[in-house]
Amino acid sequence: MSKGRWTIKRITVKTRGRNDFVDITSLVAEEVEASNIQRGFCTLFVPHTTSGITINENTDPNVIRDIEVALERAVPWTGDYRHFEGNSAAHVKASLMGFSLQVPIADGRLCLGTWQGIYLCEFDGPRTRDVWIQLFAG
Amino acid sequence: MSKGRWTIKRITVKTRGRNDFVDITSLVAEEVEASNIQRGFCTLFVPHTTSGITINENTDPNVIRDIEVALERAVPWTGDYRHFEGNSAAHVKASLMGFSLQVPIADGRLCLGTWQGIYLCEFDGPRTRDVWIQLFAG
Amino acid sequence: MSKGRWTIKRITVKTRGRNDFVDITSLVAEEVEASNIQRGFCTLFVPHTTSGITINENTDPNVIRDIEVALERAVPWTGDYRHFEGNSAAHVKASLMGFSLQVPIADGRLCLGTWQGIYLCEFDGPRTRDVWIQLFAG
Repeated sequence: MSKGRWTIKRITVKTRGRNDFVDITSLVAEEVEASNIQRGFCTLFVPHTTSGITINENTDPNVIRDIEVALERAVPWTGDYRHFEGNSAAHVKASLMGFSLQVPIADGRLCLGTWQGIYLCEFDGPRTRDVWIQLFAG
Repeated sequence: MSKGRWTIKRITVKTRGRNDFVDITSLVAEEVEASNIQRGFCTLFVPHTTSGITINENTDPNVIRDIEVALERAVPWTGDYRHFEGNSAAHVKASLMGFSLQVPIADGRLCLGTWQGIYLCEFDGPRTRDVWIQLFAG
Repeated sequence: MSKGRWTIKRITVKTRGRNDFVDITSLVAEEVEASNIQRGFCTLFVPHTTSGITINENTDPNVIRDIEVALERAVPWTGDYRHFEGNSAAHVKASLMGFSLQVPIADGRLCLGTWQGIYLCEFDGPRTRDVWIQLFAG
């Protein structure tokens, strides 16, 4: 329940494999519902450097699989990299997806499109990752 | 006219061809002007999965043409994709551009740079697309 | 010091070479500290078209070097471009990184992760570049 105009909460998700897009839509929607905010916005923020956040189709799982494949083609895991941890491609992909995302809230619900899901995208897992969910009531 | 601290509005744009960057700068600027908001911010959100939103140069149209070409080179339309609709590249490009964007408002105007235009970017058109424009007065 | 719920400020940074990721984390953190905002968010906006903004690792400088190399591989400087200024790749890379970023503020501090730094990313420098820092107290 929102006690003021703002709520902020950190959720934790577990990722599997090296690349993993974890659908966090329902976790975010639950926070919006619990807040009773009718109009405002939701800001999501990922405090990591090999995982980012994005939106994409949540119906055919092959869409996410294809995004992972296309990103691997554009930014291969091996290459002319010097970072000692050997995970430079993961850092690049995280920046390509981005670390913050803002979704409007109207009529008490996230204004997501019909086919949209919100994904935490890990590119150097498996790891346990945080996402900050910040809600603002307008 | 803004009746409170917030306004939210959905605009609709039509895209042409498979790839189309539609300059929505003037549509967004009109909303800011109509709101009479002097200071605050504007959040744009695209509720789709094959179109995103970005900013880029609005003077030489070849810039947008070159962005489309470069994205096609980085994420080709055909490839090792399994999504049954055959438009996986469009989903990837939308995530690369992103789905939300936030522009400050100061002195009653968007703080866009001299050469900046705001573009809805469709990668699997032609389609009719929505953009949420959310304004907040600080 | 914040005189209201909002502060907005434009900072200027100088970039070196063609590609340059300038770590602006401490500049942004100083603004947050000076504002005395305990809870809210920080929005960063870059008003240019060949430079963007991103977050990434701020410990091993090779991470940034590798990101620059990977972006150059994905979007080469020379290619099938028509823009008369010859810097189309820089425009593409700026859109890939994005122009706005939002970081929560809690307990008077930016909620950045341990390894996160905020970078202005120039892709057609050297240039003098602006970043808008907007703070909101919730």
